Amino acid sequence: MTDFFKGIPAIRHEGPDSDNDFAFRHYAPEEVVMGKPMKEHLRFSVAYWHSFAWEGGDPFGGQTFDRPWFGEGMEKAKLKADVAFEMFEILGAPYFCFHDVDARPEGASFAENTRNLREITDYFQGKMETTGTKLLWGTANLFSHRRYMSGAATNPDPDVYAFAAATVKSCIDATHQLGGENYVLWGGREGYETLLNTDMGRERQQAGRFLTQAVEYARKIGFNGTILIEPKPQEPTKHQYDYDVATVYGFLKDFGLEKEVKVNIEQGHAILAGHSFEHELALARELGIFGSIDMNRNDYQSGWDTDQFPNNVPEMALAYYEVLRAGGFTTGGTNFDSKLRRQSLDPEDLILAHVGGMDACAAGFKAAARMLEDGKLEAARDTRYAGWDGPEAKAMLAGGFEQIAARVEGEGINPEPRSGRQERLENLVNRYV
Amino acid sequence: MTDFFKGIPAIRHEGPDSDNDFAFRHYAPEEVVMGKPMKEHLRFSVAYWHSFAWEGGDPFGGQTFDRPWFGEGMEKAKLKADVAFEMFEILGAPYFCFHDVDARPEGASFAENTRNLREITDYFQGKMETTGTKLLWGTANLFSHRRYMSGAATNPDPDVYAFAAATVKSCIDATHQLGGENYVLWGGREGYETLLNTDMGRERQQAGRFLTQAVEYARKIGFNGTILIEPKPQEPTKHQYDYDVATVYGFLKDFGLEKEVKVNIEQGHAILAGHSFEHELALARELGIFGSIDMNRNDYQSGWDTDQFPNNVPEMALAYYEVLRAGGFTTGGTNFDSKLRRQSLDPEDLILAHVGGMDACAAGFKAAARMLEDGKLEAARDTRYAGWDGPEAKAMLAGGFEQIAARVEGEGINPEPRSGRQERLENLVNRYV
Amino acid sequence: MTDFFKGIPAIRHEGPDSDNDFAFRHYAPEEVVMGKPMKEHLRFSVAYWHSFAWEGGDPFGGQTFDRPWFGEGMEKAKLKADVAFEMFEILGAPYFCFHDVDARPEGASFAENTRNLREITDYFQGKMETTGTKLLWGTANLFSHRRYMSGAATNPDPDVYAFAAATVKSCIDATHQLGGENYVLWGGREGYETLLNTDMGRERQQAGRFLTQAVEYARKIGFNGTILIEPKPQEPTKHQYDYDVATVYGFLKDFGLEKEVKVNIEQGHAILAGHSFEHELALARELGIFGSIDMNRNDYQSGWDTDQFPNNVPEMALAYYEVLRAGGFTTGGTNFDSKLRRQSLDPEDLILAHVGGMDACAAGFKAAARMLEDGKLEAARDTRYAGWDGPEAKAMLAGGFEQIAARVEGEGINPEPRSGRQERLENLVNRYV
Amino acid sequence: MTDFFKGIPAIRHEGPDSDNDFAFRHYAPEEVVMGKPMKEHLRFSVAYWHSFAWEGGDPFGGQTFDRPWFGEGMEKAKLKADVAFEMFEILGAPYFCFHDVDARPEGASFAENTRNLREITDYFQGKMETTGTKLLWGTANLFSHRRYMSGAATNPDPDVYAFAAATVKSCIDATHQLGGENYVLWGGREGYETLLNTDMGRERQQAGRFLTQAVEYARKIGFNGTILIEPKPQEPTKHQYDYDVATVYGFLKDFGLEKEVKVNIEQGHAILAGHSFEHELALARELGIFGSIDMNRNDYQSGWDTDQFPNNVPEMALAYYEVLRAGGFTTGGTNFDSKLRRQSLDPEDLILAHVGGMDACAAGFKAAARMLEDGKLEAARDTRYAGWDGPEAKAMLAGGFEQIAARVEGEGINPEPRSGRQERLENLVNRYV
Ligand SMILES: [Co+2]
Ligand SMILES: [Co+2]
Ligand SMILES: [Co+2]
Ligand SMILES: [Co+2]
Ligand SMILES: [Co+2]
Ligand SMILES: [Co+2]
Ligand SMILES: [Co+2]
Ligand SMILES: [Co+2]
Repeated sequence: MTDFFKGIPAIRHEGPDSDNDFAFRHYAPEEVVMGKPMKEHLRFSVAYWHSFAWEGGDPFGGQTFDRPWFGEGMEKAKLKADVAFEMFEILGAPYFCFHDVDARPEGASFAENTRNLREITDYFQGKMETTGTKLLWGTANLFSHRRYMSGAATNPDPDVYAFAAATVKSCIDATHQLGGENYVLWGGREGYETLLNTDMGRERQQAGRFLTQAVEYARKIGFNGTILIEPKPQEPTKHQYDYDVATVYGFLKDFGLEKEVKVNIEQGHAILAGHSFEHELALARELGIFGSIDMNRNDYQSGWDTDQFPNNVPEMALAYYEVLRAGGFTTGGTNFDSKLRRQSLDPEDLILAHVGGMDACAAGFKAAARMLEDGKLEAARDTRYAGWDGPEAKAMLAGGFEQIAARVEGEGINPEPRSGRQERLENLVNRYV
Repeated sequence: MTDFFKGIPAIRHEGPDSDNDFAFRHYAPEEVVMGKPMKEHLRFSVAYWHSFAWEGGDPFGGQTFDRPWFGEGMEKAKLKADVAFEMFEILGAPYFCFHDVDARPEGASFAENTRNLREITDYFQGKMETTGTKLLWGTANLFSHRRYMSGAATNPDPDVYAFAAATVKSCIDATHQLGGENYVLWGGREGYETLLNTDMGRERQQAGRFLTQAVEYARKIGFNGTILIEPKPQEPTKHQYDYDVATVYGFLKDFGLEKEVKVNIEQGHAILAGHSFEHELALARELGIFGSIDMNRNDYQSGWDTDQFPNNVPEMALAYYEVLRAGGFTTGGTNFDSKLRRQSLDPEDLILAHVGGMDACAAGFKAAARMLEDGKLEAARDTRYAGWDGPEAKAMLAGGFEQIAARVEGEGINPEPRSGRQERLENLVNRYV
Repeated sequence: MTDFFKGIPAIRHEGPDSDNDFAFRHYAPEEVVMGKPMKEHLRFSVAYWHSFAWEGGDPFGGQTFDRPWFGEGMEKAKLKADVAFEMFEILGAPYFCFHDVDARPEGASFAENTRNLREITDYFQGKMETTGTKLLWGTANLFSHRRYMSGAATNPDPDVYAFAAATVKSCIDATHQLGGENYVLWGGREGYETLLNTDMGRERQQAGRFLTQAVEYARKIGFNGTILIEPKPQEPTKHQYDYDVATVYGFLKDFGLEKEVKVNIEQGHAILAGHSFEHELALARELGIFGSIDMNRNDYQSGWDTDQFPNNVPEMALAYYEVLRAGGFTTGGTNFDSKLRRQSLDPEDLILAHVGGMDACAAGFKAAARMLEDGKLEAARDTRYAGWDGPEAKAMLAGGFEQIAARVEGEGINPEPRSGRQERLENLVNRYV
Repeated sequence: MTDFFKGIPAIRHEGPDSDNDFAFRHYAPEEVVMGKPMKEHLRFSVAYWHSFAWEGGDPFGGQTFDRPWFGEGMEKAKLKADVAFEMFEILGAPYFCFHDVDARPEGASFAENTRNLREITDYFQGKMETTGTKLLWGTANLFSHRRYMSGAATNPDPDVYAFAAATVKSCIDATHQLGGENYVLWGGREGYETLLNTDMGRERQQAGRFLTQAVEYARKIGFNGTILIEPKPQEPTKHQYDYDVATVYGFLKDFGLEKEVKVNIEQGHAILAGHSFEHELALARELGIFGSIDMNRNDYQSGWDTDQFPNNVPEMALAYYEVLRAGGFTTGGTNFDSKLRRQSLDPEDLILAHVGGMDACAAGFKAAARMLEDGKLEAARDTRYAGWDGPEAKAMLAGGFEQIAARVEGEGINPEPRSGRQERLENLVNRYV
């Protein structure tokens, strides 16, 4: 045991009236909702990078956090892992996620990186066996090192593609070794700063091949987890190719990967792309590519990725409602790709931020479950479209414009609009949240 | 001749030093650039709706314009057409575009609408023969009438689908009769106000069938023009399904229409979707679905569609550069889907707005042509990606991660980044504009 | 009694478990919170314009609503008033607000407008006496008529200033007659479309004089209500002079009106200006100009004023928290400057939208009251700044840089940062909402 | 001479047809425009921080630049200065600007910081005498060090106020020693992340006192330069107090500083605040607080401060037009608060970025001068407001609502709107740019 979280107890469910900061009010892991325990619905995951590797910097200022594991070398990396797994246990978080660079010391070459990654993977494996924490997903950081400044798979230099491909291979290996349930690709530098120096068509082909090779490699080694792309519209680039769910879908279709690859949708990225979170979730569901979520919110007044812990329960209820309508998570889960505010310096802040986030998720999820079980929303939706279930409507879709026009003219069809009832549906939602 | 534009001369090219408001400084229709006359490159088109049907209202105020053709009935409709064709001639605009509702009186039924449309189509045909003005595209207005308040193809009521389909059929007929070179669909109400009352999956299927039926009908009657979708992210809806070029592409792929349908890209809609105009143009080109443009700008500080006449020549040069890289227009053209500012009350304003827009387009286009002919930008781009032309790079793309990783490790590949040279490319652009 | 709301009962409080759409779950008008009945805290008001005068149009489509009072003439205007007062009673809304043009038929001259306004004012007065409904504020619509297209007070034409001034006089008279507790000015056209034709300095002087004259006139006739400006950053104009609370404050200071005039803050306008609603409320409080609120939300993904009924209780709790910290409303209140969605056609929709909004306000307000009464948030805030209460800190503020620098150097002051505790404060808020 | 810029020549004016990357096409320092040399109009300044201290990091990646002066200690600091002054000479930039932390090594205490700053100030002084480069402004960095994470003047800890005050004193001293023509305050951390832990009223008072003390100290030591505030709406904070020009004006009025302090307006910050650059310039002029400009643009599609070198000449012409209407710069100038794109690694990139920016400024400035000299725009503006110059209009402003209303009714005033002529004015602008 390190003493980083000294004095902080394991977090327990104490019910909505608890006055204890270090308790859940809504999240009761074993409580059964819609037929299974909440922990199996929500499948919470902690992100290694923000919580343990981020130092508190922003574009206008440097490190604010003071952590005993900051620094170089394998010993620091292992200390970081020790503290991380202690936090997973304090929270009762069943899953975690990591990038290679969060976990291992940076080496001078690909070979050294890989050796370091293997050593820390083994170390993680031991801790996972001891604690029972599982890996939701692994991923490669192909955006922080300066070699990736102009992209990884989409770099103008084929050697960078090579380095990135080799790195992803090593990260799929690590994910597979740790029993990861998914593997994520976020193309933080796959995009451009200016069209003037960019060959968009070429880069698209490179990205398509890279993803295809990743899928082929994963399947070849027997990795059965889900391959996920995380969309984001921009930042750090001016334009990022995996802009949003709809864009990723077109890309997958183009390369015949829409059955192989799904999406990891982040609330903050949905907002930055001009969508609501629930829009992206619903769209992914309808397109058959819903995978997992990053449940960290964006500030509505900030134009960059603020990656804040979530706390608006009514919004979260709408999100989980779409997740439940998709059948819930299979390999996916609720990951907090959230970072502490830069001024939240204390170990307690790190715990409480997750406690609050998990609890807000639980409250939102339970509201969503009630909405779905009560069935009023779905009944209203079905009623609205009921006309389409008739044989004449189906025949119309199957036919052509000439028959339709003849019928409109012949029958004098002249439809009257009917109320969309938006406000009463919004009122209805407010009964559950 | 009406007397609406009395005293306004036909607009001629007088060169950059002209002090005449009613002259072109840059647009010389017959001047040959890159092997053909400017008028054949730019293919200017005037939009009937904004210029002749819009009354000057906005969400906070009503009509400001005072036009002799405002009002009901076929005589007013014909007077409107008379003035419109006079304006096309004053400007020397080779093309125009219209919606059914811009041109015909509104009837009480589909049958009456169709009769009115036929009568005005014949009237247009006569004027087109006389004046030589051609039709760039026709389209149906499926968004203004209250029957469409919840969508046209994507309406929960199949009767609205039917009415819309019959209407599009009538507009394809009219477009075909007039020799239109394209037919456009803008799904202004195909989207939603709230997910709570929306069945997104069902609506997507309806939209896919509608478009398929439109294409089938057009081909059946021998219409050889291009079918175009105009993307827009939102407004009037909270979310519009044809969000942007990438979204439309995924939709077309899903319904197997990516060879049949292209996009009409509007600057203002690109901006509202969080993209630059040149991004949308370049992406459409790379995806093989570039069709035509609406060259009206959006105010960068306004969050709605301002549809202003374009005037920023350096931005327009970047847009035409992407058009030229796509091979230029085939059936497409430069349409002004622009409206006068609501305070620009006078007939002269209508003429001068178009004169300024056409002239700015010409200046931007000529700058783009010089950039492409000089070849410096393309040479820099090719050099940047030259590494990909080698056999080793090609083999890498064709192979798999294992070979790549072995090579990275074996050869100790550790790439150094190279300058992206953005500022010097931006300087280079400024030599031409 | 008209039969517009036939079958709709008066809305009663039935408690959180009620299954009745036509009931309050949270709003119990007589329930005492923090020492007085909720109705006296919340002071709900209905806006005449959106609920009774708006026809359901948007920039891409026309009227969707079908109301028996739409049309010309005094009889229609009185029927509208009959229905409006019936709705106020159904809701138990103690207040309403109106513009002149909402209430009276449009005349051909100022004199006719004024006669019409007087007639309808008398009619309102009778209804107010009968029903007990009070007037929260009156206002003049200086933006819809084409004469105001280039501004009212800030118009380049002094005759428009004159017409506007005379109109405001008539509306202050009407407000005074009806015992209005405030008079509001929203400068919807006081701004510009382009700087190229605008003399910003001149227009600022005109606006300053206009407001001064309004205040002087109101005081002269014995109107003791509060004069309020409603800030908005843009729309319908590209730029509106009363951009936000901070901008209005500078304007008031410039003309010496900061003691005479306060602000009416709308959630949607705060959002459009890049602020949170609670920011604008807190700032107005600190500047001493907090007056009243328009509690209608904006869609976060739409760049124009959506004026939706509010429903996000946690956000509303933060807003009422700032209101309570300002001491609550004095002459101000909670006005719904909200319109039905364009597809919400039915009389029931109009009632239910207000019911849901009032209920969400009540839920948010009660959460805010609990937060303030429990005192934990304020205690944390006070602790954070406690260092400033010491004499040394006060002396430092009173002194100069030289003494401070001497002390920093002499004492070796080198402060360590302390956690801002944001996440735990956010968790704390979630216990109340 | 260092060899950092080896092989790069001094930049000379070669005229618009030059094919030399290392030449000015438009900027001819000695060319007389509107009565004085361009260099005296434009007063170009280079920012030390972005060009010499920034390492190429962004929120998702670290250092990309490789500079011989990166590292600790005074020798590195002097090498940096050597290279910087070499660049000023290559460019012929008459001015530079710096923060203390850009220039000096970071010390362990205020005393050490001050000693370091004095040493480098002396070193700068020597170089300035040798080269003739002058200081446009000095400033203190009160935002990067973790001690400032919760603000400087507005920190909850009075010791941070003290440290900040002492630091600003030392920077005013350095600026005064170097003959700086202005002193700038940018309150990068004067704002908040969450209202929940913020006492906005208290912080406003602290900010007011801090600025007052700064002004008093500067005047006391005989510094006659202008004190400038640089507004920015947000980033790094969620909300920054000096949001925009209008907000700063209200703040200055509140503390009686509107005659003492002016604004330094940055294009990128204007955009982030929802304004056009020319809006902020025109407003500052009308309020009497126009001081200086940071002529670096923001990407219109990015929601954070991109600080790019400017290149859109028509936009820049509109900005310089407002500057010229303000009478041009007195102590202010054209500062490039611009950074290279992170991928622009080479010494040449640094030079060419500035060359392109200076040249675009010169082109824009000359267009603005032509517009003003030709007088057509101003004549149109004057005509539009001519009605206000009459005695009746003046009397109306001086009087009250009752007289106005009597006149409106008596004379039957019913004004007709007149065209705002926006498009023809936009066309007119395009003749000059
Ligand atoms: Co994120
Ligand atoms: Co994420
Ligand atoms: Co548009
Ligand atoms: Co368009
Ligand atoms: Co509003
Ligand atoms: Co309002
Ligand atoms: Co900046
Ligand atoms: Co700046």
